Amino acid sequence: MAKKQRTAIEPTRAENYPEWYQQVIKAADLAENSPVRGCMVIKPWGYGLWENIQKVLDRMFKETGHENAYFPLFIPRSFLQKEAEHVDGFAKECAVVTHSRLEADENGVLQPTGELEEPLIVRPTSETIIGEMYSKWVQSYRDLPILINQWANVVRWEMRTRLFLRTAEFLWQEGHTVHATQEEAVEETLKMLDVYETFARDYLAVPVIKGEKTAAERFPGAVSTYSIEAMMQDRKALQAGTSHFLGQNFAKSSEIKFLSSEGQEEYAWTTSWGVSTRLVGAMIMVHSDDDGLVLPPKLAPRHVVIIPVIPKEEHRDAVTDYCRKLQGELLGCNYGDQPLRVELDERDMRGGEKVWGWVKKGVPVRLEVGPRDVENDAVFLGRRDKAAKDRQTVSRKDLLQSIEGILGDIHEALYQRALKFQKENTKRIETKEEFYSWFANEKESGFVICPWAGSAELEKEISTETKVTIRCIPMDEKKTGTCPFTGTENAPMAVFARSY
Amino acid sequence: MAKKQRTAIEPTRAENYPEWYQQVIKAADLAENSPVRGCMVIKPWGYGLWENIQKVLDRMFKETGHENAYFPLFIPRSFLQKEAEHVDGFAKECAVVTHSRLEADENGVLQPTGELEEPLIVRPTSETIIGEMYSKWVQSYRDLPILINQWANVVRWEMRTRLFLRTAEFLWQEGHTVHATQEEAVEETLKMLDVYETFARDYLAVPVIKGEKTAAERFPGAVSTYSIEAMMQDRKALQAGTSHFLGQNFAKSSEIKFLSSEGQEEYAWTTSWGVSTRLVGAMIMVHSDDDGLVLPPKLAPRHVVIIPVIPKEEHRDAVTDYCRKLQGELLGCNYGDQPLRVELDERDMRGGEKVWGWVKKGVPVRLEVGPRDVENDAVFLGRRDKAAKDRQTVSRKDLLQSIEGILGDIHEALYQRALKFQKENTKRIETKEEFYSWFANEKESGFVICPWAGSAELEKEISTETKVTIRCIPMDEKKTGTCPFTGTENAPMAVFARSY
Repeated sequence: MAKKQRTAIEPTRAENYPEWYQQVIKAADLAENSPVRGCMVIKPWGYGLWENIQKVLDRMFKETGHENAYFPLFIPRSFLQKEAEHVDGFAKECAVVTHSRLEADENGVLQPTGELEEPLIVRPTSETIIGEMYSKWVQSYRDLPILINQWANVVRWEMRTRLFLRTAEFLWQEGHTVHATQEEAVEETLKMLDVYETFARDYLAVPVIKGEKTAAERFPGAVSTYSIEAMMQDRKALQAGTSHFLGQNFAKSSEIKFLSSEGQEEYAWTTSWGVSTRLVGAMIMVHSDDDGLVLPPKLAPRHVVIIPVIPKEEHRDAVTDYCRKLQGELLGCNYGDQPLRVELDERDMRGGEKVWGWVKKGVPVRLEVGPRDVENDAVFLGRRDKAAKDRQTVSRKDLLQSIEGILGDIHEALYQRALKFQKENTKRIETKEEFYSWFANEKESGFVICPWAGSAELEKEISTETKVTIRCIPMDEKKTGTCPFTGTENAPMAVFARSY
Repeated sequence: MAKKQRTAIEPTRAENYPEWYQQVIKAADLAENSPVRGCMVIKPWGYGLWENIQKVLDRMFKETGHENAYFPLFIPRSFLQKEAEHVDGFAKECAVVTHSRLEADENGVLQPTGELEEPLIVRPTSETIIGEMYSKWVQSYRDLPILINQWANVVRWEMRTRLFLRTAEFLWQEGHTVHATQEEAVEETLKMLDVYETFARDYLAVPVIKGEKTAAERFPGAVSTYSIEAMMQDRKALQAGTSHFLGQNFAKSSEIKFLSSEGQEEYAWTTSWGVSTRLVGAMIMVHSDDDGLVLPPKLAPRHVVIIPVIPKEEHRDAVTDYCRKLQGELLGCNYGDQPLRVELDERDMRGGEKVWGWVKKGVPVRLEVGPRDVENDAVFLGRRDKAAKDRQTVSRKDLLQSIEGILGDIHEALYQRALKFQKENTKRIETKEEFYSWFANEKESGFVICPWAGSAELEKEISTETKVTIRCIPMDEKKTGTCPFTGTENAPMAVFARSY
């Protein structure tokens, strides 16, 4: 006899978190590995999430004055080579195009031919190619600022990949801006970090810590890198978005110069900022449970699913009619500024199987409708943020009046739960002993807030020993303290954690 | 003394059509060539057009039951090789990735290293990689149909490139569907062709001829290829979208098999269909004039631009206030199901220069507002489908009531003008003499409708001699005739033209 499954997802989070993550993705049909090493296929349910993420972020970018454009997929070798730190950061893991045709050899196997004069690199990020264009577009201070974003695919030849979190090819947006002054560029860098924080909180329902990266974790070529860091349910950190102040580094390597209003030729100041399909991974890992995916309502491809329950054939017409009418009514409702996304699941399949299917897909609200519900003009309502068994009967009229509120409640409940978890697993530490004992168990983690005044070398030492890194110097932390590693007083606080 | 420019764009269409096309793009700031061979940069105004095209098509695809997904950028060599005709069609012009890192040589030049076991091809189209995934997803007739679309970049190593019309990298959508029966797959192929025709007519304002391609022009690996063909203002044809019935060819090469409801294992039937950034080129070439870009209103990044005209500083406040209020009122109006997109151009620049800037950018409606207009509570309105000088005063009240109608009129005027041009330059021909004399002048073209029953060889002969190809066998043409090339009676009609 087959072992009875205790939860919809096996193993559970507690049993094996990484494997649980893979199984949640599989059960929700979000994505899968492809035969191309390290490249994933994003399936419709997963891509629907990304589309919703794109829509919201795109609106936020436009509201902050940015426009979209599109730049080439390929970067000539000579461009990548212009910025020394940058090339060091990306040359080791990149896809290199060397030929422009294939020709069959004597065995009929296609062999690369038509060798290119200069190899092309599939963009791992676009600072250098975009910088080259900007150097032509910018002549005078009147041409500034340039505020452009690109939605694109990029490739980094990662050796160990994991769906959504780290893949050789991934989808992202990369903002690239040019400014006349340092002040303005820094302001842009921090503004976009705020946009990411707002998006994480208000849409992903994920609390994040905003802060600056240490030198060791900086984007190659940046003057300063800022990130938002989220805590997953295994208490590890995940960097969910970054915003870089590039100073004049890329302006100098790409020759982005302008004539100031005083008639001086000056190098411009640039920024770049990005988030990727990794956000989908964060969303999964923060909210999902042992029954599968749990979606934050604002980004769910469907807000509500209606599941007709038809015990006998004689009930079919009445139940179906009622469900279709209900779907029509719900489609007329809004959630925030969006019309409600409502699926009616009329597939020929057992009701229980359907219900569990939608639980595993993470739909925020499930409405089961059987003959008795039709009689009572009601529905049997399940919320994905609560236990699968925790359902209640609601009259149709109440449902229509309260559905927007229910979705808002679910968002808030998910956010508060994640915030509570983050707080409960964040500890302030002031001594080395405490630090090492907290991180002694390799499986344990959580965030440690601790004063820090160490060097990049010391940071590396600690990380080699403990697998713990400094996630950021949090911006909302005003306190200082004595760094337990160096004894330096009035050191700023740093967030330490194991991370993805 | 500099020669006075007669038109905003030089040369004119009549003087040098290809160069006029480049200059229209430049004047409207739509796109430009990049330093990467054959790859263009799509600038914000051009990308805004593509975004609007995407939004509308995406909605139309979803309304016809399709979902979006995302598949890898890279195709392993062995996959491309599976379908013989397909590989022949694409192997000659493709970007081949052979290495996974760069390392500096003794001269500090980065050299490709980390050779891949199997070269990867940057997708020129995705039938083979998507087919591989589908072969895993499809087991039973219950898994069918699969109706998936992908928005992506693709690369074809074209030797002669032209902005939007033919570039090495381009953006497109590719639909890939799988069906249980031939009938259903053919129906899908034709349904999506209809979607493209509707989109061209109702959004691009471009009349097209829908038809089937001859064998010589078929998609490599397809059983039949259908296209929509539009006439440019130089009377050449441009293929604006294609839809392919792939039969069981790709199902066989990718092993997409399913168990039918009768328990038989069968190969599935597949289709693919796509349009690309080429549509932007079509839009430019069909509508624009010697003063620059003319945009079909439904896809214009801005429907209306308001240009304050401030003769003296003392007028600034009154004019500016009036314009801002007007912008607010217009933003509250709709055009179809979209809110009006209204720009207020407050740049510090001469009024005339601004006006010509917006003419060249193709904005459908320009509103100039000077002190006298403020006094009369009116605006000076120019329509981009009319001559730049042909403007009239309209009261603010009338404007707000009629703006949606005016935009609708512009769309209709553009469409009717293009349709008239197409009809005037389409000729029915029944003899060889007439055919050759019509196409005798290499610069002349137009569409010729002529009965056709020739072979692929004969078609090639004609095309080598005259540079004229068969664009399609039009579907809306019921008549038949005697093919002047072969003497065959009751031959279907074909559309001949020179083409892009």
